[in-house]
Amino acid sequence: MTTTKTAEDLFPTRLTQPSDFITRTQPTVWGSPDDGPFTETELGAHEQRGFTILDNFISADEVALYSGELDRLAADTALQNDDRMVTERSTGTVRSVFEVEKLSQVLDALARSPKVLDRAGQIVGSDVYLHQTRVNYMPSFTGTGFYWHSDFETWHAEDGMPIPRAVSLSIALTDNYPFNGGLMVMPGSHRTFVPAVGETPDNNHEQSLQAQEAGVPSHAAITAMAEKYGIDQFTGGAGGALWFDSNIMHGSGNNITPYPRSNVFMVFNSVENTLVEPFAANTARPGHIANRDFTALV
Amino acid sequence: MTTTKTAEDLFPTRLTQPSDFITRTQPTVWGSPDDGPFTETELGAHEQRGFTILDNFISADEVALYSGELDRLAADTALQNDDRMVTERSTGTVRSVFEVEKLSQVLDALARSPKVLDRAGQIVGSDVYLHQTRVNYMPSFTGTGFYWHSDFETWHAEDGMPIPRAVSLSIALTDNYPFNGGLMVMPGSHRTFVPAVGETPDNNHEQSLQAQEAGVPSHAAITAMAEKYGIDQFTGGAGGALWFDSNIMHGSGNNITPYPRSNVFMVFNSVENTLVEPFAANTARPGHIANRDFTALV
Repeated sequence: MTTTKTAEDLFPTRLTQPSDFITRTQPTVWGSPDDGPFTETELGAHEQRGFTILDNFISADEVALYSGELDRLAADTALQNDDRMVTERSTGTVRSVFEVEKLSQVLDALARSPKVLDRAGQIVGSDVYLHQTRVNYMPSFTGTGFYWHSDFETWHAEDGMPIPRAVSLSIALTDNYPFNGGLMVMPGSHRTFVPAVGETPDNNHEQSLQAQEAGVPSHAAITAMAEKYGIDQFTGGAGGALWFDSNIMHGSGNNITPYPRSNVFMVFNSVENTLVEPFAANTARPGHIANRDFTALV
Repeated sequence: MTTTKTAEDLFPTRLTQPSDFITRTQPTVWGSPDDGPFTETELGAHEQRGFTILDNFISADEVALYSGELDRLAADTALQNDDRMVTERSTGTVRSVFEVEKLSQVLDALARSPKVLDRAGQIVGSDVYLHQTRVNYMPSFTGTGFYWHSDFETWHAEDGMPIPRAVSLSIALTDNYPFNGGLMVMPGSHRTFVPAVGETPDNNHEQSLQAQEAGVPSHAAITAMAEKYGIDQFTGGAGGALWFDSNIMHGSGNNITPYPRSNVFMVFNSVENTLVEPFAANTARPGHIANRDFTALV
């Protein structure tokens, strides 16, 4: 499939010198209460904060089912040299498995289930397709986090996503405590785009999935964003869901506790926001990281 | 000053192979409600949990005063090659300054102030002396934590402290959030001594103050302890105090937030529990880490 860079670059990034933050003009919620399960109040809060937490989004049985899939994939020797499998740099433990909808029928079914699909479509206001999926596993004792970033900054720069009209779903398969490397978010930060400084190295994704180095906001930028928006944590029991905007500033610390942390992560992009050529990288990332099959989910 | 190993080794550690946990027979609280500011209820809770949090233990003015002392010491070029100054392994930032009662008159006065001294003496049930003092600084963005450990395990093995009849005071000079590398403790874990496996390397303290490697409990031990006791975090505003038993299992994660974390840390040991020769190391650690001047504080 060929794609062309037809969209205007509304979010210049990977610059040679620091530039001002960009205030986003696009909405966060594109649909209305009539379009799906979220109420008007819930949609308003999502627009404001950039994320929504739904406790007990899936049942204990479903947690067990998807955890089993994670274990099965992590143990699959056929995947050991597969690009879709990403390991911890220092220990070799499985950190993420990508494109899980193609590796697992039950996870494909989860992405297409009404309770997921209807909410995703309601937020982006159109049909959606899967931009990226993965299962993440942060081990106990030695788990390393992800430094502060906006997903959209990477998807725009390296994948050619035109605007932040995508929503991510993270379903917790383990309990999230404040102290086992849970996600930190800056509520409201999705309204502000932080341009990154520094050109994208060729084949950046080969290391960036272990530890992000390009596209990282400066200390000054993170400090200013935290001052403006504050920091919240996503805590709660296994089975909880976090729906979050593609441009929200988020990160996670390490995990020295005996409690591992795992989740299913799926990104739903609007079919009206499909990828063009990367805005700030020489070559597009592979399909298992940035899907270029834009067929709407049904 | 010479010391002799006269005490029986009630807590064998740094062993060649794993051994059972030891249930402590010594009390945690040695004094009574009549001996100081802690009430009967507070002493009972301290005995049970192994720690006590006192919000607003010092005033905002005192926070500013001690923070100024920390900044002054960290910037003191005369201390740059002083053993009492410990820096972050990767960045060179000041991580701790030891023996601060000798470097700062105001911190010496803090250790001797009735509100500190009376509580310390009440818990250990006798006059006390300073076993160790330091100011700790965990920088924003790149702060690294301390892995799980019991202080008493180290003080017994490497310093020759006979029994856990010492209490530590940590005063927060910055706000402690759940997500900026705050202390995690296992409530009640002070009743259980976890022997460590592995001999103590010579001059272990030269690296152990940056990243502990000897005396570290196994993953199995930490898992068992967390299952039995759970994990709590020390959070709260600047000026809060944490009094904690020398044998409580504790640790801290890293800090990728823009919020640095600093505190004053002082260990009060009973004058009836003074150091003998190390129980599991060839040589005793230097005086700025393990004070051998046992003069009671007044």
